[in-house]
Amino acid sequence: MPHALRRAAVQKRLLELGLHALLVTDLLNIRYLTGFTGSNGALLVHVDGDEQSVFCTDGRYRTQSQRQVAGLRRLIERSCALRLAKHATELEIGRLGFESHVVTVDGYAALQEVTGSDVLVATSRPVEALRSVKDDSEIARLRAACAIADTALAGLLGDDGLRPGRTEREVAWDLEARMVALGATGPSFETIVASGAHSAIPHHRPTGAQLCRGDLVKLDFGALVEGYHSDMTRTVVLGAPAAWQRDIYDLVAAAQAAGRAALRAQADVRDVDAAARKVITDAGHGENFLHGLGHGVGLQIHEAPALSQFGVGTLAVGMTVTVEPGVYLAGRGGVRIEDTLVVTGGEPELLTQTTKDLVVVPC
Amino acid sequence: MPHALRRAAVQKRLLELGLHALLVTDLLNIRYLTGFTGSNGALLVHVDGDEQSVFCTDGRYRTQSQRQVAGLRRLIERSCALRLAKHATELEIGRLGFESHVVTVDGYAALQEVTGSDVLVATSRPVEALRSVKDDSEIARLRAACAIADTALAGLLGDDGLRPGRTEREVAWDLEARMVALGATGPSFETIVASGAHSAIPHHRPTGAQLCRGDLVKLDFGALVEGYHSDMTRTVVLGAPAAWQRDIYDLVAAAQAAGRAALRAQADVRDVDAAARKVITDAGHGENFLHGLGHGVGLQIHEAPALSQFGVGTLAVGMTVTVEPGVYLAGRGGVRIEDTLVVTGGEPELLTQTTKDLVVVPC
Repeated sequence: MPHALRRAAVQKRLLELGLHALLVTDLLNIRYLTGFTGSNGALLVHVDGDEQSVFCTDGRYRTQSQRQVAGLRRLIERSCALRLAKHATELEIGRLGFESHVVTVDGYAALQEVTGSDVLVATSRPVEALRSVKDDSEIARLRAACAIADTALAGLLGDDGLRPGRTEREVAWDLEARMVALGATGPSFETIVASGAHSAIPHHRPTGAQLCRGDLVKLDFGALVEGYHSDMTRTVVLGAPAAWQRDIYDLVAAAQAAGRAALRAQADVRDVDAAARKVITDAGHGENFLHGLGHGVGLQIHEAPALSQFGVGTLAVGMTVTVEPGVYLAGRGGVRIEDTLVVTGGEPELLTQTTKDLVVVPC
Repeated sequence: MPHALRRAAVQKRLLELGLHALLVTDLLNIRYLTGFTGSNGALLVHVDGDEQSVFCTDGRYRTQSQRQVAGLRRLIERSCALRLAKHATELEIGRLGFESHVVTVDGYAALQEVTGSDVLVATSRPVEALRSVKDDSEIARLRAACAIADTALAGLLGDDGLRPGRTEREVAWDLEARMVALGATGPSFETIVASGAHSAIPHHRPTGAQLCRGDLVKLDFGALVEGYHSDMTRTVVLGAPAAWQRDIYDLVAAAQAAGRAALRAQADVRDVDAAARKVITDAGHGENFLHGLGHGVGLQIHEAPALSQFGVGTLAVGMTVTVEPGVYLAGRGGVRIEDTLVVTGGEPELLTQTTKDLVVVPC
């Protein structure tokens, strides 16, 4: 019953915050707390427990929600958040938390019309705080998603799928099809295949450009398994690498190893970023590392915590994060190496197990 | 130069609203107004025109935005909206519109810290209002996306792809692969394949359930072409239809024809919904038609206008919408028939051209 346990954790938090209930309107948070996967819904978590909590969705999801949302009273209505705000008013709830990072300015005005003033309390990411630490069922799904990505890439390489003449788009589709054949719901985000000078664009969209001998080819992709997202980047070279290619590869690999080594419970997220960034900066490439070191993964491909210069907070056991430094030389090419890992009491658990030695594709 | 023309239309609207600038933070609206396809950005549209307008994104998109965002000053910074709010303050902008249906309660508080009070003006969907009426380049993309969906379905049927024993998931993947092979970026949403009793679930996710002789099979899918989404549903039957299957099929087809016939410029969106709904209600199935009649399609799979009992407004030439009534008999099966059409000065233009006669798959 992970959903009921998660709702109990929210109830505990409500008690600490002096709130009588929380109106959850973020769909992923609703999925996390109930199992509901539809596109319209809201959840009122009552501080007194599941007997008082209520879920709402619209008529399209009547059948589906009956199956997915066990053990909670259900209401069927189109404007779910407003319906639950009305319900809260009927229960005479005096302090109703809402997700102030999700509810829009217009949505807030509509809620306030229902509840009157002085009832709604902006509450900062209470469910996300729980979600950042994964339970065993979540880690199992992430492990499965990462294994699928590993196997798909091994199959692509084994079947000569990165041969010169193929287009970036063909390779992306090939990887995605392999992941689905291995049991993924789909890719966990739009697969990045970036060849040659394109590899210097951190978030390149695959094009009709053909892979050429001598190219760096950056592959950033993942599998979606029961709502959970894996994330991995590998950069390979087609044929013998040039000296500059090997140099930046070795540099990024060293930075990535330093980032992984810094990935410890209680570590400040900025220190983890700094551990990897220092390696790149010391080599004179600081300005070519254009993004943060990593991010949490789970029900979202990007979620808390952010491992970056601008991140806040410390790591905890059970957090699942990426470590993905990169060096990008505009017009020439770039390298990124990315793993998904679980923070533990000791060494982090590596979920993406594809080699990080430079893969030279013979051609 | 459609992007510059669209920004000029926003500037005109700002003048009408007495605003000095609009802070655009919705990524699709930014794409619509600039061509930028990255995942972080903001746009300040100045009432005085492009010379004063500014685009902001972060370092990951420096190269990409240089190519995509032509003719606008660019700033590179991570917190794009706050950076542009600061810029607006430096320009001493007194009335700065913001997208109050997009900016969250937390986001608003952060913006207000930068601008001070009395500067920000909640502005209701100014860009969406423009987006609801498509220009020729947009309709061309939607036409291409719909043609791909038509061709993919014809191929699936022609290759015996709906044979008993295949799973819903295999069929969904087959359709998606065909659309990509035909040039789509991907599916325009998660393909629905719902067989037998599953067809009574309006938004069913494909499972490992096998197609069986005698099943209604509902296929709801579309192609994504250069950011534009097609949307089509067809329901077929495997083998000779039972009387009840043919009855609800004929009923839904009649309702869908009535909805299409009502699709005229200046029509009230509720009247279009009512025209189709009346056919189903008169046949005693009103409570089995669980959703609105249709919705706009474009850069989003669901966008304005909503053709429903709860919709507001009238149709205009150039709007692209779906017409998709359905009748769902829980535990037995359901039928939905959906087209994407363009509102014109006369008859609507039908973009999804697959037959709406009941397709009986021989088996």
